[in-house]
Amino acid sequence: MNPGHVVVVGAGLAGLAAASRLRKGGAEVTVLEARSRVGGRIEGGRSSDGTPVELGGQWIGPTQDRMYALVEELGLETFPTYNEGKHVVLLGNRTTRMASARGAVPRLNPFVLVDIFQGLTRFTRLAKRVPLDQPWSAPGAESLDAQTFETWIRRNLRTQTGRMYFRVACEAVFAAEASDLSALHALFYAHAGTDFEGLLSTDRGAQQDRVVGGSIRLCEVMAERLGPAVRLGEPVRRIDQDGSGVRATTRTGQVVEGDRVVVTLPPTLAGRLEYGPQLPSWRDQLTQRLPAGSVIKLFAVYDEPFWRSDGLTGQAASDTGPVKITFDNSPPSGRPGILLGFMEGSDARRWARSTETERRDAALGCFARYFGPKGRRAEEYIERDWMGEEFSRGCYGAHFTPGVWTAYGPALRQPIGRIHFAGAEHATIWNGYMEGAVRSGEEVADDVLSAL
Amino acid sequence: MNPGHVVVVGAGLAGLAAASRLRKGGAEVTVLEARSRVGGRIEGGRSSDGTPVELGGQWIGPTQDRMYALVEELGLETFPTYNEGKHVVLLGNRTTRMASARGAVPRLNPFVLVDIFQGLTRFTRLAKRVPLDQPWSAPGAESLDAQTFETWIRRNLRTQTGRMYFRVACEAVFAAEASDLSALHALFYAHAGTDFEGLLSTDRGAQQDRVVGGSIRLCEVMAERLGPAVRLGEPVRRIDQDGSGVRATTRTGQVVEGDRVVVTLPPTLAGRLEYGPQLPSWRDQLTQRLPAGSVIKLFAVYDEPFWRSDGLTGQAASDTGPVKITFDNSPPSGRPGILLGFMEGSDARRWARSTETERRDAALGCFARYFGPKGRRAEEYIERDWMGEEFSRGCYGAHFTPGVWTAYGPALRQPIGRIHFAGAEHATIWNGYMEGAVRSGEEVADDVLSAL
Repeated sequence: MNPGHVVVVGAGLAGLAAASRLRKGGAEVTVLEARSRVGGRIEGGRSSDGTPVELGGQWIGPTQDRMYALVEELGLETFPTYNEGKHVVLLGNRTTRMASARGAVPRLNPFVLVDIFQGLTRFTRLAKRVPLDQPWSAPGAESLDAQTFETWIRRNLRTQTGRMYFRVACEAVFAAEASDLSALHALFYAHAGTDFEGLLSTDRGAQQDRVVGGSIRLCEVMAERLGPAVRLGEPVRRIDQDGSGVRATTRTGQVVEGDRVVVTLPPTLAGRLEYGPQLPSWRDQLTQRLPAGSVIKLFAVYDEPFWRSDGLTGQAASDTGPVKITFDNSPPSGRPGILLGFMEGSDARRWARSTETERRDAALGCFARYFGPKGRRAEEYIERDWMGEEFSRGCYGAHFTPGVWTAYGPALRQPIGRIHFAGAEHATIWNGYMEGAVRSGEEVADDVLSAL
Repeated sequence: MNPGHVVVVGAGLAGLAAASRLRKGGAEVTVLEARSRVGGRIEGGRSSDGTPVELGGQWIGPTQDRMYALVEELGLETFPTYNEGKHVVLLGNRTTRMASARGAVPRLNPFVLVDIFQGLTRFTRLAKRVPLDQPWSAPGAESLDAQTFETWIRRNLRTQTGRMYFRVACEAVFAAEASDLSALHALFYAHAGTDFEGLLSTDRGAQQDRVVGGSIRLCEVMAERLGPAVRLGEPVRRIDQDGSGVRATTRTGQVVEGDRVVVTLPPTLAGRLEYGPQLPSWRDQLTQRLPAGSVIKLFAVYDEPFWRSDGLTGQAASDTGPVKITFDNSPPSGRPGILLGFMEGSDARRWARSTETERRDAALGCFARYFGPKGRRAEEYIERDWMGEEFSRGCYGAHFTPGVWTAYGPALRQPIGRIHFAGAEHATIWNGYMEGAVRSGEEVADDVLSAL
């Protein structure tokens, strides 16, 4: 017996995971996707020789159990992010190389090292006390949520370089400045992803593994299995509900009726839909306060990964942008060599106003600074400005600005009648990551199945 | 010669002021208003005996020159907010009465008074240095914008009661908690409205005067003069532009073409429209970061203003809610007696989930606490939850969260091609007030006229 029909808004990882789980549970599903492709904030590109280039989310790492299982279920494989040799670290006008093992420390002045170590210890201790299903009830939540992460950094780090380390880490993790987000949110997020160091690490960290063929394969295979239930090019504009069901209307005028709807859009976009009846104020004011991060993800393609023969991992962390974080993003074969760089936070905002040529020059300049003059001689340059994507409007995810967790937190995962909300931002485990997206989508699907 | 046709989105004060100025400049205008009434965040209500009750914005005060001139142009009159006798002040478990003259100080312990005085002095000194047309270039802007106003308060006030004074003041001015907004924004806003003390004052302050018949008369008379150019019940959903003009499409499917469009919606709602081509990322990410405040405005109607005979102004300021700020909002005749109360910030958010009966009881309880047991015996209770208004989604206005002025400030008033933005949030003078709305509307109208 068919228990009902569920409309899923968005064919990103959360939407596809929700739809797959719903169908497995016996429900009929229709997935309405705004773009002409699936994946949402995961996107597959290719360099001119056909090598997959991952324009959006791409990594998985330890404790992301659902992702590793999903990779297997979908008949895909992972391979390790290239991590042999040394990382390049530029902090406080000093360039050092550090071992690529998790827990390795850059060669910095001992005062700075102690400062960073104490700051991380304190941060981790606080983070572990944040209950993942209700961050607003953490000890000291009111006070931690009343300050920016930048304020926390200034209070808890004593050296300029120590502060800079935390700021760069914040940009790398949130694609936002430490001044943009609540200190409580930073703590919650680190705890949701195990710990802060793990979020920053390749070895035994969140950047450990990649998917052969590109992360988009996850979405493509899931969408293939869902078949014609996934309808592309249908941006949902309005959702109506009444006692008997829901009705989603798209910009093209298509109307899809169902028993329930799962909205998997990033919060700021979920808040832009028209709802009839309108959503209650706590939900609307919440989505007004969850802006998306700011990032331009870019790639330089070289004949070969020249940095490897210099004993470098291709990973750099720098306090001087616009590209402050880099990775070796070559395919498993190592040919071509691909450097990946991020412009994040204020760098992304500033450079979004420049031309692609200007960004290319700036990015290659950074690669040369980190890995030598060959960095300038790229064969090809590819980029994706996620802020400019109409159906994402920022990446990696939303951050909670000060005061929002404590004032609106309980509204985050609460369904409104027949409307359910899912997505990486709604996850209690690995919030903001692919793992969180899948977990959230599947959990909400289970809720819907039991409500049908 | 008709220089062109301009579409104005929103018939609030800014939209009506823009349309009036545009027509005066010779342009043809069409104003598209979502609601079945004009006024936006100004709304006229009536008590059961027909007395005007101002459900939204209502006061004007010194240096709001444009408002006083507009009142006269529209053939209206002002009358003073009732301010005779003493205010009731409840701070730090102590109830005092203070003179109602601007600059009067409550009888508090001298350490607290010195603390408040020093805090206000420091705040005012910093505020005066914030350039109103570019707050991001204030001295120390980066640091001030990287912290919440709450952090500023904790750093600059030493006593618990002094901090509470600032927090209540913040709620009264922004309908937001001090933890919600950037310290730089608080400073900018106070400077834009002359000074912080003025924002809080009735005598020679922002609450000095009212409009006979209610503030809605301003909008009604402007709309009458514009005649059928104002089209009600037409929520704009989408704005398209190309080299030759603009096209606004409403939810009912009406299409209005013009040479330019002025969007006067609150930022968070302006950001929800569909735009073709989509707006650049800096504009979109800005409106993701300008949430509306949280307020429920409520009224208790009594046979007579009983507090007056007790020598009270009807104005209370309290650190214990849910109604922390009250006013005598009786009509000029003084019959009936009307007490106005605000639930603001976290109080509004919490009480929005209660029933109207529960809010009524809580509000009357506050009135009784401030003005005696007669406060409970209201003939009538009227309220407006502005967070629940689909076409406002909060009041009084938007606040800048930390980091936003410095990262996105220049995008606030910048037109995007043929799309111009106006409204109280865009004003450099009296930002957030009716004065700011009119000034912004008229300034943008002038820009449009010179661009036509």
